[in-house]
Parts: sequence; structure tokens; C-alpha cells
Amino acid sequence: MPDIKILTEADLRRVIKLDADAVSCIEQAFHLLTTKDVVMPPILSFHVPEHNGEVDVKTAYVPGIDSFAIKMSPGFFDNPKLGLPSLNGLMVLFDARTGIVKGVLLDNGYLTDVRTAAAGAVAAKHLSREDSKVAGILGSGIQARLQLEALTLVRGIERAVIWGRDGEKAAECARDCSAHLGIEVTTGSIADVMGAADIVVTTTPSGTPLISADTLRPGQHVTAMGSDADYKTELAPDVIPAATLFVCDRLSQSIKQGELRPAIAAGAVTDPESYSELGQIIAGQRTGRQSASDITIADLTGTGVQDTAIATLAGERATAAGAGTSIQS
Amino acid sequence: MPDIKILTEADLRRVIKLDADAVSCIEQAFHLLTTKDVVMPPILSFHVPEHNGEVDVKTAYVPGIDSFAIKMSPGFFDNPKLGLPSLNGLMVLFDARTGIVKGVLLDNGYLTDVRTAAAGAVAAKHLSREDSKVAGILGSGIQARLQLEALTLVRGIERAVIWGRDGEKAAECARDCSAHLGIEVTTGSIADVMGAADIVVTTTPSGTPLISADTLRPGQHVTAMGSDADYKTELAPDVIPAATLFVCDRLSQSIKQGELRPAIAAGAVTDPESYSELGQIIAGQRTGRQSASDITIADLTGTGVQDTAIATLAGERATAAGAGTSIQS
Repeated sequence: MPDIKILTEADLRRVIKLDADAVSCIEQAFHLLTTKDVVMPPILSFHVPEHNGEVDVKTAYVPGIDSFAIKMSPGFFDNPKLGLPSLNGLMVLFDARTGIVKGVLLDNGYLTDVRTAAAGAVAAKHLSREDSKVAGILGSGIQARLQLEALTLVRGIERAVIWGRDGEKAAECARDCSAHLGIEVTTGSIADVMGAADIVVTTTPSGTPLISADTLRPGQHVTAMGSDADYKTELAPDVIPAATLFVCDRLSQSIKQGELRPAIAAGAVTDPESYSELGQIIAGQRTGRQSASDITIADLTGTGVQDTAIATLAGERATAAGAGTSIQS
Repeated sequence: MPDIKILTEADLRRVIKLDADAVSCIEQAFHLLTTKDVVMPPILSFHVPEHNGEVDVKTAYVPGIDSFAIKMSPGFFDNPKLGLPSLNGLMVLFDARTGIVKGVLLDNGYLTDVRTAAAGAVAAKHLSREDSKVAGILGSGIQARLQLEALTLVRGIERAVIWGRDGEKAAECARDCSAHLGIEVTTGSIADVMGAADIVVTTTPSGTPLISADTLRPGQHVTAMGSDADYKTELAPDVIPAATLFVCDRLSQSIKQGELRPAIAAGAVTDPESYSELGQIIAGQRTGRQSASDITIADLTGTGVQDTAIATLAGERATAAGAGTSIQS
């Protein structure tokens, strides 16, 4: 049996960064999701009620990628009381031809952070105006930071406005981003963000809408990446019908646990299957932005294809760099 | 973050064996499955059509067990052409209170082999006649060997008869078992097995029935453990109605991918929900064998609870023995 590579979070941080290569890897993943017979089973999800925990398992087999990943993502929300992070997890990388384990990626969620931010960059690259200069971020957590950084990889972002429910955290996030990215980053209200930004990214776990249709401005692009469960939403039901173009990463997921869910429930969307997926825009099968005044919206729920793509890249890079511990089993 | 223990198949073979402790561990798992609010989501299953592969992911959270396992089982059936085994896999062990990874068990399917055989012993312990002396095995693979060994842990087995589709393999299996267990083991037809055995275990991936009702004898116990998919079956549809008592590991699974499936399809079983689960017999909630002439049948499809139980035991034993490689991530 071939050796198995054990990679720690530190190993993975050395070989995978949020950069143009990561964006290109995830862009390719969305392209394959549309153009190949990808096998992406529904997410296996279960709760551990005694300990306020939930676990998601995602996977996808992608013809054209020589490995597939199975990702296990536990979220145990009482952990901070114990001094431990709520979110966690790992990926296992398998050879797509033999099913034999190639690597165990003990990333503690790092690769998910990167592939999620990279998807935001891909959405902005294909949907926002090329001359977008001002970014707006709702939320002040890790994804707020990474999504802003990801935008700077694909557009000439000159400044950003951040809103967070907790003003102090938002201010800290703005300071961090400004120092890290070397651009002006300020805080403001949601109205300030919507009034200033060419590209808005929503990164919160909100259960009630943050953005309503009357705050959208011509030419704006919005990526909603917070909602990935059937109790979350960041967009009011009138937002999707108000957009010129609505695109999601995976229709079936957006309908079940993304922004199409509440819009359908409210009767604001009656023909969800008519919307495009991001991969169709990338592959040229559907039309993207047509004019500088179009309002475009992307809903990202996160797909197993992204996990398989980033884990495969991580495995290749780790092998090339001689990173990790080899185990014979 | 706590260290993560990486355990190889060799490590696991040293700390877990098919013995009374393993049987007791799996017996306890079935008891908990019945008496506790176990969370056992449906199996995540997908195909890799280009490479004749399939992957199953099983898990269960069991109140009363302080870890849970997620098991990934790839089966790639063209692997033997490449000199590689078809079946493979690993388990990841998580802390049930925090969701944090405790261990990665690179067992290549070994723990599944043990917990599957142990379940056969548990079924025989609770359903077969205590004075059972002759075992009969259908099949000649790894589970044929292990199921016979498992029976010797719970009953005074003095001899065994084995049938296999391939006569040479059956003879080899009989020789191996005789040498390993120190009892007389012969080969014969299915009729020979049914005519001689007090306890019969069927261990094949057969898609057509091997046992029909007219071959059952009063007092006999049959465990059918081969069928775990909706195209497999070892018992003719008339077998279940002919038994005094039919029990399965998990009703929902037996109905979907076990022996209840073809019996329902043939109209031979019309009220499947009335049957007992093995845990109910163990917990004394339902009645088991009532007389020496009862014919009892157990259908085992395999449950995530068994995986969580054996993986937890393996993790505890490995820690006590100082086995494996510790990784800080």
C-alpha cells in the first residue's frame, strides 16, 4: 500500500495561501462542476444535541481531478467556554482511481476558509464591474477578512467599508484589513456599506435579512456567502427579484439551505430552477453581466467540489515541498 | 489543541482482536442503540463510475460513548487488476463533547471486519440454542473465517461445515479454520450445511437467494450478514415468514438494503415494522428464543453504532498501550 501523508494545519498554511493560484483552482472547480459528470451527494449532516454540536460531511468526485476529498466539519458551539474553537475538522484525500487514502489533511478548517474566500473572488471576477474600486463587507469574522482580501486579487479595490453587529469587532476587523492589505478600511452602517460599495460580500450567520432591495444600487454586485443552513438568510426576499442577474454555486443547495429558500418561501421567487449556476457563467453556457448598470447577485453555499479541488492542490503542493509526515499503513 | 493519534493497521491489530472484549463492546453498542437516543444518519453513499468504485460513509453519535467515529469505506472493484485490495478505508475518531479530532484509524477495513464478526457472535449468543455444537458457513472469504471464529467465542462449537461457490476456495477456508480453531471443519453443499448446522451464518455478496424455507430445521439459528445493498440477498422471500423469530440490527436498514427488502417486494412480508431489533432482545424489551425448536433468524446490515463502539475501544486501548504516532495540529 502506498504511504499516507499526514499534513497538519501548519504544513497546509505553508503550501496553500489565498492567492491567484487558489482562486484559479476554485474557478476551475466550478467549471468542472458544470461541464463534467460530477458526483456530489447531498451533505451528510447530524446533530449532537447534548453538546450543542453539529457535524457536516461533504464530498465530491470530479472527473478530471485525480483525487477526491471527504471533508468532516464539526461545529460545537459550547467549545469557547472550554477555551476551544467552535469550528474544526479535517479532510481525507483519496486516489480517485483506486479509492486508496493518499493523505489526511488536519487543517482545522483552514482549507475551507481559503476555498470559501476564493469562491468569493471567482464570483466577483465573473459578475462585478471590472472597474469596481470600493468593497463593502457585512460581518467581522475570519471570512470578512478573507473575502475582502480575495476581492483585492481580482479587482482594483482601493478602499472598503465594513459593518459588524458588534462595533468594536468591526473596528478591529477594519484595522486588521487596512494593515494587512494596505488600503483604507473604515466601518459604517449597513446603509453606509450599500451606499459606498461596488462589490458587497455578506459573511454573517444571520437568521434575519440584512439587505433589502431598496438599498441596492445600479452596477452593484453582491455575494451572499453566509447562509448555508435552512435557518440562515442575509438577503430579504425582494432582493433576488430586484437583481438583473442572480447566480448561485449550486441550485439544489441554494433552494434548500441558501438564499433561494426564504425567497421561495415568501413567494418572491416562483421559478428557482431558471437561475444560473456560477459554473455556467464561467463555462460561457449562460450570460453574465451585460452592462455597467446591471445589479448582480451570487449566493454561495459551499460545495464538495471546492473541497476536492483545494485538497487535491494541497496534496500536490505538499508532495512537491516534501511537507508532512509519511505513514505506512 | 490536543494531540491527534495516528494509528496504522498494524497498531490496530495489536490492540484490537476478535475476542470476548470485542463481542462485549458490540453487544453494548446494540444495547445503547435501543436504549439511548442514538443519532445515526442515513449512510452517505456515492459511486465513482469511471473506476468501478463506490464509497460509503457511516457514523453514529451514541450517548454514553465519549467519542464518535466517522467511517469512510471505499470499494474499488478493479483494484485487484492493479495488485491492490478492493476494500479499504479508515475511521476518524472525534471527541463527542467538543467535536475535536482525537485519532485517525488507518485500519484498511480491519476494524469493520472485527465489529462485523463480533455482531455475528452477539446474534448467536442471544438467539441460538445454548447447546449449539455444529456451525455452518456459506461463503469462503474473510468474514466466513471470522464469523466462524466469532461463534466459537459464544457457543461450544465442535465442528463446522463450509460451502463456497468456488470449491477450492471453500476447501482452503476449511483448512485454515480447522488449523486456526482446532476443530473439525469440512466442506459440503448448501443442503449439507443446512442439514448439519445448529447455527448457520451466510457471508456472501450474493444477488440471488441461497437458503429457502424448506431447508430450515427446527431449533436452527441463521444469521444473514451478507446483504448490505439493495441488490443483494441470501434468503429466499419465504424464509423470514417461516422463522419463529426474525430480528435485525436496524429495521430501517433491513427494509432498504437488507433481507426484509426482497421479502417485502415479493409480498412475503407485509408488516416489517413489527419485527424486533437485536438491541431490543439484548435489553429485554422483546422476547428472544422461547424453545429449543424455535427457528430464529438475524439479519445484520452493519451500523454506524458498531463503528463508533469499536473505534472508541481501539482509541482507548491505543492510548493505554502508547501505540501510534502523535501529531500536533
